[in-house]
Amino acid sequence: MIGTFYGVGVGPGDPELLTQKAVRVLGEVDWIFHPYDNPDGTSFSKRIIAPLGLPDSKFKSVHLTMSRDRSKDRQTYDVAADAIFSELRQGRSVAWITQGDPFFYSTFMYLYEQMRKRYPEVSIEVIPGVTSPSAASARAGVPISRLHEKVAVLPATYGLEALPGLLDEFATVFLMKVNRVFDQLLEILAGLPTPVQAIYMEKVGTAEERIVTDLETLKGENLPYFSLVLLRRHSDERDGV
Amino acid sequence: MIGTFYGVGVGPGDPELLTQKAVRVLGEVDWIFHPYDNPDGTSFSKRIIAPLGLPDSKFKSVHLTMSRDRSKDRQTYDVAADAIFSELRQGRSVAWITQGDPFFYSTFMYLYEQMRKRYPEVSIEVIPGVTSPSAASARAGVPISRLHEKVAVLPATYGLEALPGLLDEFATVFLMKVNRVFDQLLEILAGLPTPVQAIYMEKVGTAEERIVTDLETLKGENLPYFSLVLLRRHSDERDGV
Repeated sequence: MIGTFYGVGVGPGDPELLTQKAVRVLGEVDWIFHPYDNPDGTSFSKRIIAPLGLPDSKFKSVHLTMSRDRSKDRQTYDVAADAIFSELRQGRSVAWITQGDPFFYSTFMYLYEQMRKRYPEVSIEVIPGVTSPSAASARAGVPISRLHEKVAVLPATYGLEALPGLLDEFATVFLMKVNRVFDQLLEILAGLPTPVQAIYMEKVGTAEERIVTDLETLKGENLPYFSLVLLRRHSDERDGV
Repeated sequence: MIGTFYGVGVGPGDPELLTQKAVRVLGEVDWIFHPYDNPDGTSFSKRIIAPLGLPDSKFKSVHLTMSRDRSKDRQTYDVAADAIFSELRQGRSVAWITQGDPFFYSTFMYLYEQMRKRYPEVSIEVIPGVTSPSAASARAGVPISRLHEKVAVLPATYGLEALPGLLDEFATVFLMKVNRVFDQLLEILAGLPTPVQAIYMEKVGTAEERIVTDLETLKGENLPYFSLVLLRRHSDERDGV
């Protein structure tokens, strides 16, 4: 009997935002695989679940570079899929933990596809998590979408030139991982015909959380990878809710 | 001392997708206000938290029509804000429960804004939840967004005519509450130059969950309010992950 493979979203950073399902599954599985992305070997996703007090012997780490050139990570995922399958075929269950939601800008997706392609006999269960846009808007007190409004989410590095047009059509635009293009973003925002509400947030829900409403003050700063900007058109509160 | 007001997202339908924070807060507050939207007085959000076994005496219901004409609901929210404040001013804490995430197409938003406007002295905490798009993609096994991809979310009733253009730019498009415009959607999809992957889902995570991949089979059916369609462009798996 082949074990089940779980893709577990652990939420944006606050351990209390883990779902009950994630907590149960992480307690039940034989192995928890996780990426680590810092030179010192620490893992953001592993840190989120630390308060669960699971034994360290249950964890296996996989090194990812998180660079824009993904070829090395692809090899790593191929190797990880094999390593995970060798546990599953012995009847053991394995979870892969990932920040936020497993299918939303996550490192889990490629592993998921490799597993489906190489080992179609494996049963995979994906456990959704709270995303960083949801957590960020909750912390900032800024609604994402009323009943008639549209929402766009862009990885900042790949879509910034389209931003002015999108802000006409979408009530809220989330820019994910703005760290690399932040100064370019400031220029675009300064050139908009009508100003929009803009909120910068990093590491939402962690002890290092930072929320900044005057984006100009961040100019030239070295911003972290887990950073996003929420852009929202001002609208009449009573309109269409 | 004025009590705290909590906007609590209870997730898409599966009680196990409640966050640990939602469970803790709902246990601690003095009152849980909730909308009910069915003629028989049952409430979807209240049903999600039923397994917590909280005493019925802790709940107060507010009637909402969920119709497109929101003027009646607006009056209801004004009255609800007053009713909630009269508890808060006596030092009691109050939670408002809402399906999914409180700031994402939720009935909570208007209440939040009324509360901020009328009673700015009230401290409000929003507890984010797992959204139905995250739950739906997890159940369907279809990734939402790789690192370079854009995502759009549209309330189907208000944005369907823009759909063909959006499918060129966004890798994934979610259409929320497709029930009223489903046959029109089928026509648009049939007229696309390149077919896209389309998955219909209703009541994700509940016992009545339904996932349909051949949308044509639903033609003419009377679909429920909690329905969505995930549209995804076919893309090379190895591209950019």
